[in-house]
Amino acid sequence: MPHILSTTDADFEERFTALLSMKREDSPDVDDVVAGIIADVCARGDAALIELTSRFDRLDLTPDTLAFSAAEIDRNCALVTPQEREALETAAERIRAYHVRQMPEDVSWTDPEGATLGWRWTPVSAAGLYVPGGIASYPSSMLMNAIPAKVAGVPQLAVCVPTPDGQVNPLVLMAARIAGVDRIYRLGGAQAIAALAYGTQTIPPVDKITGPGNAFVAAAKRRVFGKVGIDMIAGPSEILVIADRDNDPDWIALDLLSQAEHDESAQSILITTDAAFGQAVAQAVEARLETLDRREVAGASWAGNGAVITVRDLDEAAELSNRIAPEHLELCVADPEGLARSCIHAGAIFLGQWTPEAIGDYVGGPNHVLPTARSARFSSGLSVMDFLKRTTMARMTPQALTAIGPAAETLATSESLGAHGLSVRARREKLNAQGTNTG
Amino acid sequence: MPHILSTTDADFEERFTALLSMKREDSPDVDDVVAGIIADVCARGDAALIELTSRFDRLDLTPDTLAFSAAEIDRNCALVTPQEREALETAAERIRAYHVRQMPEDVSWTDPEGATLGWRWTPVSAAGLYVPGGIASYPSSMLMNAIPAKVAGVPQLAVCVPTPDGQVNPLVLMAARIAGVDRIYRLGGAQAIAALAYGTQTIPPVDKITGPGNAFVAAAKRRVFGKVGIDMIAGPSEILVIADRDNDPDWIALDLLSQAEHDESAQSILITTDAAFGQAVAQAVEARLETLDRREVAGASWAGNGAVITVRDLDEAAELSNRIAPEHLELCVADPEGLARSCIHAGAIFLGQWTPEAIGDYVGGPNHVLPTARSARFSSGLSVMDFLKRTTMARMTPQALTAIGPAAETLATSESLGAHGLSVRARREKLNAQGTNTG
Repeated sequence: MPHILSTTDADFEERFTALLSMKREDSPDVDDVVAGIIADVCARGDAALIELTSRFDRLDLTPDTLAFSAAEIDRNCALVTPQEREALETAAERIRAYHVRQMPEDVSWTDPEGATLGWRWTPVSAAGLYVPGGIASYPSSMLMNAIPAKVAGVPQLAVCVPTPDGQVNPLVLMAARIAGVDRIYRLGGAQAIAALAYGTQTIPPVDKITGPGNAFVAAAKRRVFGKVGIDMIAGPSEILVIADRDNDPDWIALDLLSQAEHDESAQSILITTDAAFGQAVAQAVEARLETLDRREVAGASWAGNGAVITVRDLDEAAELSNRIAPEHLELCVADPEGLARSCIHAGAIFLGQWTPEAIGDYVGGPNHVLPTARSARFSSGLSVMDFLKRTTMARMTPQALTAIGPAAETLATSESLGAHGLSVRARREKLNAQGTNTG
Repeated sequence: MPHILSTTDADFEERFTALLSMKREDSPDVDDVVAGIIADVCARGDAALIELTSRFDRLDLTPDTLAFSAAEIDRNCALVTPQEREALETAAERIRAYHVRQMPEDVSWTDPEGATLGWRWTPVSAAGLYVPGGIASYPSSMLMNAIPAKVAGVPQLAVCVPTPDGQVNPLVLMAARIAGVDRIYRLGGAQAIAALAYGTQTIPPVDKITGPGNAFVAAAKRRVFGKVGIDMIAGPSEILVIADRDNDPDWIALDLLSQAEHDESAQSILITTDAAFGQAVAQAVEARLETLDRREVAGASWAGNGAVITVRDLDEAAELSNRIAPEHLELCVADPEGLARSCIHAGAIFLGQWTPEAIGDYVGGPNHVLPTARSARFSSGLSVMDFLKRTTMARMTPQALTAIGPAAETLATSESLGAHGLSVRARREKLNAQGTNTG
């Protein structure tokens, strides 16, 4: 049974707060193990990678076979059906078209004092993506991580994917090829992150690491942060659907289940203005759970973390939504754009009943790597910006320095930073001696 | 004596690599102490803040005096000289004018399949700035942190500044008022960060914390990251000046010293195409060190971490600059814009001999909070973006769902995510039953 709440209940505030602060995931403390693995890779390079991969993935590699060869990638791509290949290409094309629009422009202007100011964007020189193996080996995640990097113009893009017992998902390799990945290594876990961050004899270090992973990968990313950039550390997935009664309960049930089936710690919440509709959705969820392939996972998530909340009106719905700050927010109401204006904290918004969240996981265009665990209050999903950095630019003229230099000198003096002031003053004195039109 | 290197030296590569990997700062391990302080503030709120402030800052507060009153701020602002006030206002105006241009626009478009796509920017609801007390209490840092937040539209902006023995820098309060800060708390250290992240009876929690601080503040920011957003953890400051012989050695010496005087762990590097000019700058540094107020700090930084590197040409200079990825990069050459195009990793670039780095610390306009310790390879200085987050938006139509839905279903099947596929399929079946022009 999911949590059933109504804002008219006397204990609503208490139960809603409890729902918000519910801890859905136990992260095992693997930090010591991870620290040891990173130190080992730093010290021994390829030899450590080969030994760790033999131990954890039961796979014997050499420096020459750490990366997939072009022929191996060819062989795997040949296993992908034309229908799957076409679906990947459709997804890639739409993701690329969306992310191309995110490319920011360089800006430069001259202000009234004569100073030329602006900034410039440049890509990181090399990025590394982590793609999990096993059951959560998602070709869609490969596209969602690799395409923004390539759109940003990252010249070197490497991927690490674990291949336990030598097994790999051919669609992941196909997706990497479509996205334009340069190199794919058969590496997983903390050792993969260490190799990307520090480099080895065979693997060049990168400047930025993105992509999801298990507790070992997450701990390793935290540890190498600072040496390289990382994306967010994602928690379990979440969806909030706000729906009025004019919806098919079965559609909404499937949208809730499409989050729940990811993971037992996933969370699906329905907020509705109509208690009877809420009940109908809950019944539709139970009906669908009878036949769903991943019914055990989805059922455990729904029973443990799911919720149906009845509200008086959509204003209340927006207020609760902002407290939840959901990763995915689906608005199945008559005026979804209007409601979206009041929902100020969300990773991604899906507008109207024809926009199931699953479209956004694959082919919508926007990125599916999104802030979880209420972090949409202060952070954003993955974008081309994650693979770019901004350099600010300033050029003074003698006139500009004459105009604004004295203020800098005053502030430098007030902060007791003498050389700061003198570096401006020495130049101004030269100008004063010459007249200010020099230069 | 600074490090003297030339790319023509046989051992150059070895010595340059050593210079790059030099550890300039020993961070004391205060993590356990900080964890205890955060837990105490979470458990006891105001009472913990009052007790910790009494212990560390020798200042007795009550819940009513945790924040400065408007009258106290008035009294302090009256102590600021008109010249200082005007300098702060000039700086604030220029910083605001620069950061206003950073405001990104919301974007929305309809694609050929009929899907409406885009994204929207919204500010965080509340931000907290940390401003150090004591010798490093810089009003300029208050402006550089607070103005981007206000330009981003953050409705609630709080500041924590420690006031040991009740002492506060009036210019810091004046800068806060000019920047539009809403509330200023007399709090420092890890307890200030804990109060901002978790809130207390008196202090509302914020969503984002920025600003520099000592080892305790840095450790606390790392610990609350995830609960709230944080800016970077800044290391000691650095400057790289690339200068040809057509410069006044004294100006370049002052630019190097204006970094060195910040901190003994600061680093100032000169790269020049002319060995004799490099010597002249080193001599000018020694001459200026004789009279500089902060000669002990600046001298220790220059002797320990400073470097003069002679290169064959500007191509070599750019190559070394990219390996250093400096926080501040000053280009004092005939064509600074041309050289800037080759210098792809830098926090901020200062173009030409009339642009001393100190201008950028105060009144240039660009932010002075910049990536240190080679992190300009993958990160950017503080900007309005740090106080905004992006929500992606998507709206499908029946036509769009018909066009791209099948690809989503194929990929969902390939990832064994049944409910994902069904959520699309159920809608498409309805459309098929009705003909695709419905909706």
